[in-house]
Amino acid sequence: MAERVEGTMKAFVMKEIGRVGFMDKPVPRPGPSDAIVRTTSALICTSDSHTVKGGIGPRENLTLGHEGVGVVHEVGDEVRNFRPGDRVLVGAITPDWGDLASQNGHPSQSGGPLGGFKFANSKDGVFAEYFHVNEADANLAKIPDGVPDEMAVYCADMLSTGFMGAENGNIPLGGTVAVLAQGPVGLMATAGAKLRGAGLVIGVESVPSRQKLARDYGADEIVDFTTEDVVERILELTQGHGVDTAIEALGADVTFQTAIKITKPGGTVSNTGYYGEGEFVRIPRIEWGVGMADKTITTGLCPGGRLRMERLLRVLESKRLDPTHMTTHTFRFDEMERAFEVADKKLDDMVKVLITFS
Amino acid sequence: MAERVEGTMKAFVMKEIGRVGFMDKPVPRPGPSDAIVRTTSALICTSDSHTVKGGIGPRENLTLGHEGVGVVHEVGDEVRNFRPGDRVLVGAITPDWGDLASQNGHPSQSGGPLGGFKFANSKDGVFAEYFHVNEADANLAKIPDGVPDEMAVYCADMLSTGFMGAENGNIPLGGTVAVLAQGPVGLMATAGAKLRGAGLVIGVESVPSRQKLARDYGADEIVDFTTEDVVERILELTQGHGVDTAIEALGADVTFQTAIKITKPGGTVSNTGYYGEGEFVRIPRIEWGVGMADKTITTGLCPGGRLRMERLLRVLESKRLDPTHMTTHTFRFDEMERAFEVADKKLDDMVKVLITFS
Amino acid sequence: MAERVEGTMKAFVMKEIGRVGFMDKPVPRPGPSDAIVRTTSALICTSDSHTVKGGIGPRENLTLGHEGVGVVHEVGDEVRNFRPGDRVLVGAITPDWGDLASQNGHPSQSGGPLGGFKFANSKDGVFAEYFHVNEADANLAKIPDGVPDEMAVYCADMLSTGFMGAENGNIPLGGTVAVLAQGPVGLMATAGAKLRGAGLVIGVESVPSRQKLARDYGADEIVDFTTEDVVERILELTQGHGVDTAIEALGADVTFQTAIKITKPGGTVSNTGYYGEGEFVRIPRIEWGVGMADKTITTGLCPGGRLRMERLLRVLESKRLDPTHMTTHTFRFDEMERAFEVADKKLDDMVKVLITFS
Amino acid sequence: MAERVEGTMKAFVMKEIGRVGFMDKPVPRPGPSDAIVRTTSALICTSDSHTVKGGIGPRENLTLGHEGVGVVHEVGDEVRNFRPGDRVLVGAITPDWGDLASQNGHPSQSGGPLGGFKFANSKDGVFAEYFHVNEADANLAKIPDGVPDEMAVYCADMLSTGFMGAENGNIPLGGTVAVLAQGPVGLMATAGAKLRGAGLVIGVESVPSRQKLARDYGADEIVDFTTEDVVERILELTQGHGVDTAIEALGADVTFQTAIKITKPGGTVSNTGYYGEGEFVRIPRIEWGVGMADKTITTGLCPGGRLRMERLLRVLESKRLDPTHMTTHTFRFDEMERAFEVADKKLDDMVKVLITFS
Repeated sequence: MAERVEGTMKAFVMKEIGRVGFMDKPVPRPGPSDAIVRTTSALICTSDSHTVKGGIGPRENLTLGHEGVGVVHEVGDEVRNFRPGDRVLVGAITPDWGDLASQNGHPSQSGGPLGGFKFANSKDGVFAEYFHVNEADANLAKIPDGVPDEMAVYCADMLSTGFMGAENGNIPLGGTVAVLAQGPVGLMATAGAKLRGAGLVIGVESVPSRQKLARDYGADEIVDFTTEDVVERILELTQGHGVDTAIEALGADVTFQTAIKITKPGGTVSNTGYYGEGEFVRIPRIEWGVGMADKTITTGLCPGGRLRMERLLRVLESKRLDPTHMTTHTFRFDEMERAFEVADKKLDDMVKVLITFS
Repeated sequence: MAERVEGTMKAFVMKEIGRVGFMDKPVPRPGPSDAIVRTTSALICTSDSHTVKGGIGPRENLTLGHEGVGVVHEVGDEVRNFRPGDRVLVGAITPDWGDLASQNGHPSQSGGPLGGFKFANSKDGVFAEYFHVNEADANLAKIPDGVPDEMAVYCADMLSTGFMGAENGNIPLGGTVAVLAQGPVGLMATAGAKLRGAGLVIGVESVPSRQKLARDYGADEIVDFTTEDVVERILELTQGHGVDTAIEALGADVTFQTAIKITKPGGTVSNTGYYGEGEFVRIPRIEWGVGMADKTITTGLCPGGRLRMERLLRVLESKRLDPTHMTTHTFRFDEMERAFEVADKKLDDMVKVLITFS
Repeated sequence: MAERVEGTMKAFVMKEIGRVGFMDKPVPRPGPSDAIVRTTSALICTSDSHTVKGGIGPRENLTLGHEGVGVVHEVGDEVRNFRPGDRVLVGAITPDWGDLASQNGHPSQSGGPLGGFKFANSKDGVFAEYFHVNEADANLAKIPDGVPDEMAVYCADMLSTGFMGAENGNIPLGGTVAVLAQGPVGLMATAGAKLRGAGLVIGVESVPSRQKLARDYGADEIVDFTTEDVVERILELTQGHGVDTAIEALGADVTFQTAIKITKPGGTVSNTGYYGEGEFVRIPRIEWGVGMADKTITTGLCPGGRLRMERLLRVLESKRLDPTHMTTHTFRFDEMERAFEVADKKLDDMVKVLITFS
Repeated sequence: MAERVEGTMKAFVMKEIGRVGFMDKPVPRPGPSDAIVRTTSALICTSDSHTVKGGIGPRENLTLGHEGVGVVHEVGDEVRNFRPGDRVLVGAITPDWGDLASQNGHPSQSGGPLGGFKFANSKDGVFAEYFHVNEADANLAKIPDGVPDEMAVYCADMLSTGFMGAENGNIPLGGTVAVLAQGPVGLMATAGAKLRGAGLVIGVESVPSRQKLARDYGADEIVDFTTEDVVERILELTQGHGVDTAIEALGADVTFQTAIKITKPGGTVSNTGYYGEGEFVRIPRIEWGVGMADKTITTGLCPGGRLRMERLLRVLESKRLDPTHMTTHTFRFDEMERAFEVADKKLDDMVKVLITFS
């Protein structure tokens, strides 16, 4: 980074639809219950690419990024649990905790549908030297000594979303689970299914490097949709019953249909995918039991908040899981343009791209 | 009924697709754990019409009907809780209680998807002078003295299915509910929503006589889809939030879409409808929060079994509800052909047609 | 009230253990997210008596009362949903919504065990001309036009706590419920059990006026513990099975034991009572199935918050319930000393004492 | 075994309270839906000792044992899923699946409190060359090729009961759990807590060999009640919050009290222990939040049935867990008297005693 004006910082932004780059911005200041964090590590997410392509509509000079950790730089007057110097994680979703949706148990929906999703959406994101966190006491979590920043940062979205897929799937101990697609969220859903005690975890994936990661994270069987009939193979693996839980981790109409088909009567289809196209997501009528087979469909948006982050960090601290095997690429923040290209184009078997700040 | 041969009975059957009529059949005999019931009251269901039109495939001389009550005529050697002369109700669904699906909490899916649905499907139904009940100890329930047969018979399917819509909808005390269509199942879903403590129940219906019944059974507001925009009106009635629970009680793609649209993030769409057409039932992508708005979709098939029936009968016995207001027509069993025509063609503001046996 | 100094108000306080009376206090001022409410109606609770007797330890000049409604007088800068002149209800419990316990789904426990209980505990209560509300956007609710203040005030604690007893009891539609003691919380638990669709509600009570109220609010059967063996009678009423749900609404060791005894294997004992005495609350070992009969014991503290209050108000607005039949006495605020005596000594068949402000 | 009369077998029985030994019995015959299993492996349980001491009352020549596997010897006419020669596991609890308690989701309570517990209680157990299984289709499970008999036999009770402790405890992913006592059920509760994704598992135990097993099965921390204050230490390990879930795995009043004390408000005490003494099990009033701290107490009896057993076997098949580390002693069936003594007196650091049949 070159010299800079006092009180300004570098930020990597979406200048307009289809165009990204660096720009200088003022270092943000906290409101009474907020915090400002100096970024140390961040991850690029496929939804950053969606955003740049216009997935959430036009934006001008919006700082990208929602997966970040760092060190508390400044806090507002009413913040009681954190102070400058604390090493902290913040969830990708930073709810308003007093909102009606939060009181209803759905904080990610606070402020409206998907309203907890603020970073790189309704405010600047974490691809900057500093970023702003609302309701710091409720949305930050201290990182334990044994967990390095570049590992903790996976909790912000990847663990939280992937695990949510497993949790919403109501997996019985010893139950059967299929995870459809083994991108980073799918891999963490696979890990989550194993962590919930599934007895058989089936990963659906065609890319060899991701198949290998899936096995490492807990898949007992791999089904390759390019060489096998997924529905037929999964029914065979489950003695014709279908799985207790199918986790959709791609966000495609056809995958969602497969999820319905492979789920047993009484089972659950748990969605983590973002559906970016088409007017409808379609349920296959017959395999859904004409609406009467007790097949439940659940959805969700990455859970955030201090309690959630503390629990995810504990999973890392106790060495139940090491998500850093997904880090296929590492760049310094000043190499962000190249980093974004690698992530956007999924070059070199990219799974996750880590950005380091210094 | 004319004279008849010893050991035979009259049955009203589907002779083939599109053709119904009476025929003589042998009085059934029980296996060791079964019972034979002499029918006293029955109800015609719209699914009897679906069946005759070929909805479940071809059948030959299948006795129709799955909503019936009567008096125990004969029991198998291992039946311990019932004996000849007992006045009994049997659910439309008669599960195999030892099946894996039953052990998993989904008895209606025992023996395969929708496998608990046996009457007028995989075996003869109740539109006959006698009918057969499997696992009698587990599938029959004694009718309390204060509940007449023509009221109890509503528990077999209408209360059980309608209430299931409310139960699966996870209605909070004081919550907001919309019930889409006020046919007999929708009316009982409306009653069920009120019984679960909903604070606002909105019934969607255009037929005046059904609107009136809906109000009687607990609808606080009626929305007429022929004169109002249902989505707009329901959002208005809920201050823009949408309902906690939308119960689909029609079985139509368009109604299902409406259900998704009117449900708040974090809410539940509870399906009771049978979808008889099309390759897909379609979820509107944007209003489903692109798969991330915590909107859950549940489905089910009428719960059966002794415990369920006893609980439903208790609701009638304690006078929480009188379903007989839905009985718009009553016929004797020997008038079955005319009765079936009234039901099939929904003549004269038909809601439910009661059949009496003597 | 006599003339008073600008900026001061009358408050009815616990001067020390065992002594109550009026005093002047400054009208409170709001922090940035708080509100000040001018009181219009309040109710006296038995826990006010407990407090005065030292139940929560010594207090000096603490304003009593936690059930109150009024008109917004002033709001802090960050309050967005309420403004002066709004007619509002506030729950007896006013949680910190960002706290870890709230994020965990237990807002009444925010800030520590029972920490959401602030009024007349960790800060001044509502028996004053004005009172202070923390996190106003999250803890206040507007009162609908059709619900008078003296009815709405029952939501603050009586409906919320009584209904919680029913909700935590996991009552099946058509299930069997016993509510042990028909004081105001027990009566609202009775009403709550009916609102959740119980098929049989048994009220245990000996006082005739309360027995009558219990019947009005939904008890199908009354058991008088002074003339009957409660366990024997309830087993008889449930054909020897025991109830699905027993709600303890007294807070006595012996009643808790009865609750365990009358609950069927697989059933739930839902506690609403406050246990004020003894080192232990005792579970009868044998009737608890030596720890193996699938009998669950749940507890809770009155839920608070805007969403809860809005739902309870909707129950009143839709005329599902009229709690004002419990108002046996009404006093003006300047008659507070006499009012408190009536409540404290349970004079004249007192159920609830309403205080009006003008 | 010596020569024997055709149709007879050796059985190890409780002759009367306090006295055990071998005797000859007729090989049992199946009813229409039953099976007879030739025993290959069995485990001795502490409850066998309780029974001999009179814990369930007097018995005469009752065959002991409820943890067994074997080969199907004979089946009744109506058995469809199993045939002679199948290698099978049967749960310690063999429910009546049509019973009202089973329909209510509590099959272990079928036929009355703890009624699913039949082996060595209401009928002969598995310490014999052959044993009888009711409802064979619903209560047997085939053992996969990769799982040896001496491993599968742990599913019958140890895994099923221990895992139940974890499942009933409602453990959040990344949550904190304490397991009180590391006997075989406690060890499997520890394993179960890890399998459900707990982030911190604390085992309470003083015996070094059991402490070591606890660590192997997933305990991150060990607390020794002989050298530390358990409550203080666990609060310290959880930053003063207490655990999300405390699993009682001993069945002692004092341990139960500890469980209440170490559980956070909103947390769950999950009981697996059998309480053999005293009129009461006592809840410490203050630490239970005077009945208002949202602390839930759950209980249960070992779940049985084919679905349960299949799921547990899948956990073994996928090598998530190896319970055979608990096998500290192995004896042939003809050494049963010595084996029983070792188990009864907990000699030589006994954890579990395996019995082999040949």
